[in-house]
Amino acid sequence: MVVSTLDKDNRFSGFYLPGPAAGYSELLTSPLEGSQQDTGLVPQPIFSFTVNWRLRDSETARTTVFLGQCYVDTNGEETLHALWLLREAANNPAEDWKATRTGTSTFTRIK
Amino acid sequence: MVVSTLDKDNRFSGFYLPGPAAGYSELLTSPLEGSQQDTGLVPQPIFSFTVNWRLRDSETARTTVFLGQCYVDTNGEETLHALWLLREAANNPAEDWKATRTGTSTFTRIK
Amino acid sequence: MVVSTLDKDNRFSGFYLPGPAAGYSELLTSPLEGSQQDTGLVPQPIFSFTVNWRLRDSETARTTVFLGQCYVDTNGEETLHALWLLREAANNPAEDWKATRTGTSTFTRIK
Amino acid sequence: MVVSTLDKDNRFSGFYLPGPAAGYSELLTSPLEGSQQDTGLVPQPIFSFTVNWRLRDSETARTTVFLGQCYVDTNGEETLHALWLLREAANNPAEDWKATRTGTSTFTRIK
Repeated sequence: MVVSTLDKDNRFSGFYLPGPAAGYSELLTSPLEGSQQDTGLVPQPIFSFTVNWRLRDSETARTTVFLGQCYVDTNGEETLHALWLLREAANNPAEDWKATRTGTSTFTRIK
Repeated sequence: MVVSTLDKDNRFSGFYLPGPAAGYSELLTSPLEGSQQDTGLVPQPIFSFTVNWRLRDSETARTTVFLGQCYVDTNGEETLHALWLLREAANNPAEDWKATRTGTSTFTRIK
Repeated sequence: MVVSTLDKDNRFSGFYLPGPAAGYSELLTSPLEGSQQDTGLVPQPIFSFTVNWRLRDSETARTTVFLGQCYVDTNGEETLHALWLLREAANNPAEDWKATRTGTSTFTRIK
Repeated sequence: MVVSTLDKDNRFSGFYLPGPAAGYSELLTSPLEGSQQDTGLVPQPIFSFTVNWRLRDSETARTTVFLGQCYVDTNGEETLHALWLLREAANNPAEDWKATRTGTSTFTRIK
């Protein structure tokens, strides 16, 4: 994941690179957009971002939202803990129930 | 929920008004920002949006992300089915596990 | 869903019948097992149950857990609100992240 | 977490001990009950279990369901990956939306 510096409204953008082990080889590096709380107000900000997946073929659309918090330890190291929801487009409301996966991700910032 | 028309990048903004029955009387009408798939490309677009809650007092910050799909029936009626994650800021990683609630919401567009 | 009466330990068993619209036509009527809080102690008990899905073919195993609460309105009508997690067996830990779906279900008891 | 050996129906029981860092100091060691797939049929079984929390005071009831899979690496080491839902009893359906937390847990078996 590569993210831009924050703009004045605490928004950021970037790219998400799914790892080779992700088991979703059809996923390509995809754009993300998000925002976080103002670190001038809170030391450990909540953040959220959305990835609209670029797909290898003309497949079913997929979008992931991440919601997490950035924790800073006593050494100044940042760790991001997030939960996410991943939706694949369903054909109709009757199939909506199975459209959404969930899980957690942890990120460490590489400086 | 009141949302703007889509801009040229399929983004929208608006306000989320928690109902009186929500049981979270400390929540105020709060700004939301989101985006959806291009309805020129897909008839039943996936959408996502984030609400950064404005709080009555100087309470713990809360953010909700919604991820859903807009279904259109044969009469042209739109219904939005979404899952959401709601995070309250935690004090430290050891308390992170209990920071996130989840659930579903259904919205009907009032024309 | 057909469930037995509670035994003395507040456990029940039964069968879950996926509807024709479920979009998972490979699912067969499957056994469930669960338990609930003692209604002698709480009027609106929390319940949980597990469905180990019987599959039409020798497919990937699937299990669903439901966790909910039974609400009783002023007319004595019972409504069950539940969240669920559905897991499909993954081949290895690297594919574990995409194994779990989530959503909500509402049940009304037919007397 | 201490669990019994499996009975002939692949059920187990035991106790869950919340760690001191859990931030829920009101939780006591609590009984769990669950089941898993037959390891004679699948090498990496899906499992589920329910914890009905014993509480320090006469507080709101809480129940957690875990749903996961037991992975065995090439050295025979077992790691359990699970998602969970935690429900606190709500007073009425209008407050049901905020009753459920979610997250993931990883367990290593101590032999």
